Amino acid sequence: MSVTAAKGFTAAGIAAGIKENGNPDLALVVNTGPRRAAAGVFTSNRVKAAPVLWSEQVLKSGQVSAVVLNSGGANACTGPKGFQDTHATAEKVAEVLGRGAIEVAVCSTGLIGVLLPMDKLLPGVEKAAESLSEHGGEKAAIAIKTTDTVHKTSVVTKDGWTVGGMAKGAGMLAPGLATMLVVLTTDADLDDDVLDKALRAATRTTFDRVDSDGCMSTNDTVLLLASGAAGVTPEYTEFAEAVRQVCDDLGQQLIRDAEGASKDIKVEVINAATEDDAVEVGRSIARNNLLKCAIHGEDPNWGRVLSAIGTTSAAFEPDRLNVAINGVWVCKNGGVGEDREKVDMRYREVHIVADLAAGAETATIWTNDLTADYVHENSAYSS
Amino acid sequence: MSVTAAKGFTAAGIAAGIKENGNPDLALVVNTGPRRAAAGVFTSNRVKAAPVLWSEQVLKSGQVSAVVLNSGGANACTGPKGFQDTHATAEKVAEVLGRGAIEVAVCSTGLIGVLLPMDKLLPGVEKAAESLSEHGGEKAAIAIKTTDTVHKTSVVTKDGWTVGGMAKGAGMLAPGLATMLVVLTTDADLDDDVLDKALRAATRTTFDRVDSDGCMSTNDTVLLLASGAAGVTPEYTEFAEAVRQVCDDLGQQLIRDAEGASKDIKVEVINAATEDDAVEVGRSIARNNLLKCAIHGEDPNWGRVLSAIGTTSAAFEPDRLNVAINGVWVCKNGGVGEDREKVDMRYREVHIVADLAAGAETATIWTNDLTADYVHENSAYSS
Repeated sequence: MSVTAAKGFTAAGIAAGIKENGNPDLALVVNTGPRRAAAGVFTSNRVKAAPVLWSEQVLKSGQVSAVVLNSGGANACTGPKGFQDTHATAEKVAEVLGRGAIEVAVCSTGLIGVLLPMDKLLPGVEKAAESLSEHGGEKAAIAIKTTDTVHKTSVVTKDGWTVGGMAKGAGMLAPGLATMLVVLTTDADLDDDVLDKALRAATRTTFDRVDSDGCMSTNDTVLLLASGAAGVTPEYTEFAEAVRQVCDDLGQQLIRDAEGASKDIKVEVINAATEDDAVEVGRSIARNNLLKCAIHGEDPNWGRVLSAIGTTSAAFEPDRLNVAINGVWVCKNGGVGEDREKVDMRYREVHIVADLAAGAETATIWTNDLTADYVHENSAYSS
Repeated sequence: MSVTAAKGFTAAGIAAGIKENGNPDLALVVNTGPRRAAAGVFTSNRVKAAPVLWSEQVLKSGQVSAVVLNSGGANACTGPKGFQDTHATAEKVAEVLGRGAIEVAVCSTGLIGVLLPMDKLLPGVEKAAESLSEHGGEKAAIAIKTTDTVHKTSVVTKDGWTVGGMAKGAGMLAPGLATMLVVLTTDADLDDDVLDKALRAATRTTFDRVDSDGCMSTNDTVLLLASGAAGVTPEYTEFAEAVRQVCDDLGQQLIRDAEGASKDIKVEVINAATEDDAVEVGRSIARNNLLKCAIHGEDPNWGRVLSAIGTTSAAFEPDRLNVAINGVWVCKNGGVGEDREKVDMRYREVHIVADLAAGAETATIWTNDLTADYVHENSAYSS
């Protein structure tokens, strides 16, 4: 299903030989129209990979005919040659599809600071184009995996139109966005400015609030392509909600597959003075290594939650803070609350509620525990 | 030596039974005069432990006669009862020494959110007072250990006067300050405003730039006590430099004993537009979990350095950044530099230089690698 669940799209995923282990590493998604409106959101890291710099230019026209994605190399910090390689990749896709290169978005993921093997990538584009199919969404989703253990897809179908998508990402997950490539497609008939509005609204409260390890990638890209093939123009709010649902589902899949994680942690900040305060506090808790280790050890260590809250500039009084872990209010009024022995930490999902007692705003950040497996994976895998 | 290297101080370290394993857990440092000027720097965490709230008030007078320190419990997030306990501890010290309670600073370290066993602590104060000695500095340094594997002391002796000190801290090390208790003493004859100036200048470039795990404690305290017993008033610059040296030495000892660490990482940011930029970039690099894992794996993964720099607001151009790891410029002009195979990562100290090519300012942040041992220690030890 994935990106080909919506009508008007074909996709392929093949092994071009970029990855030395022979796994699939090249995906192609093509909008067969009749429309080709598109929107994109990119990493806010100031060190941007060549494909991000290229695709940002492509998206300025609001038109995308195809997206080519490779795993096995991020093409980041690769200088002018890296940018030439991205450009050559777009040119190759344009050539085989009979489109203009400026309509071809490029995404790369993998090791930073290494040039892509263009002698393998360019023939791979031809091979991918030959295997394009209306059923190719699954294979495309598989070809963009790096340390992902599973491929991630999501589809929402409404009355006569569909939003579908695929995502990759398992580490370097943090706001703005994650090490994360996402392609969403829809057969709804919409202009690029509507797509852009819906996509930004959706990513702001989904991918931007997934923070696995606090590390922001150089390559993050989320694209939304509309073919118009369904011949339906949905109401904005209904469409925006469908996009949000797909983004939320894919974001959850990213967290559940985060490198080395054994716990998915939902950090819900309530009664904040502002939404910004709620997000700042949520991120501070989500990034606290000591707390993440404690959760790994199934220790409801609320003191580490309070010390994380204390580092923020959010409005709160220390002696009015309350913290619940899995439904037990272990901290009340900044001090000892209910018996921590009551907290059941056996399950994968852990729910932390931080009550700032300072207003009525709320935000939820998702993160993971910090584990020896995360350390092993990231000290052994050069990425 | 430690806090009793300077004349005019006695100290003791005993086992009061606060720690269940029977290890030393209570230290007392007494200024026997003739002067008792003092200065203090405290955590910038807004969630402050009871002893921090108390000692901040004590230091307002610029006079400290004694410092009582306990390990085995942080007395943080313990509400009004916790504050009463700190107050009762100061009263007890005042009583046994015949001083005023408002001249007694209190420091605590250990688990957050648990009340101290006052039935053990108060008799412990009496026991400590009985064993006060001009040679007690070492025992005091031992009694404040938590997960520290070694006790930390440092002494600088100049022409007729001395600055000495002790420190504890092994995790939750981050700016403003670390989970760190430090008591410095001097027999120089100086006013509290001079002590304050010298202490703030010293901590700004030493303890404040030690960032083991990005987590800021609720209990950090650095105290500097002057007895005047040497009868010498040194020049300010000479005194300030001696204080800086002791702080720097103790800060280095904290990093070398950080929980689970196998590498000490010196992050030196050069050619920054401002010192603030240099510190911001240094902290961002020092807190990047992916980089810290890579260093643990002896992988000179400069891409993770660049992605960390890219998250800051410092002045720089991505294509002018240079990065050296252990003397090899593995990244030049934002791209691939010298062969990363040349980097020798076998030794404990790792030196990362980030050249922002944007000015002439510099700053150095010290951190550690992220290891499975850190995870194990902090998922098993409730602190």
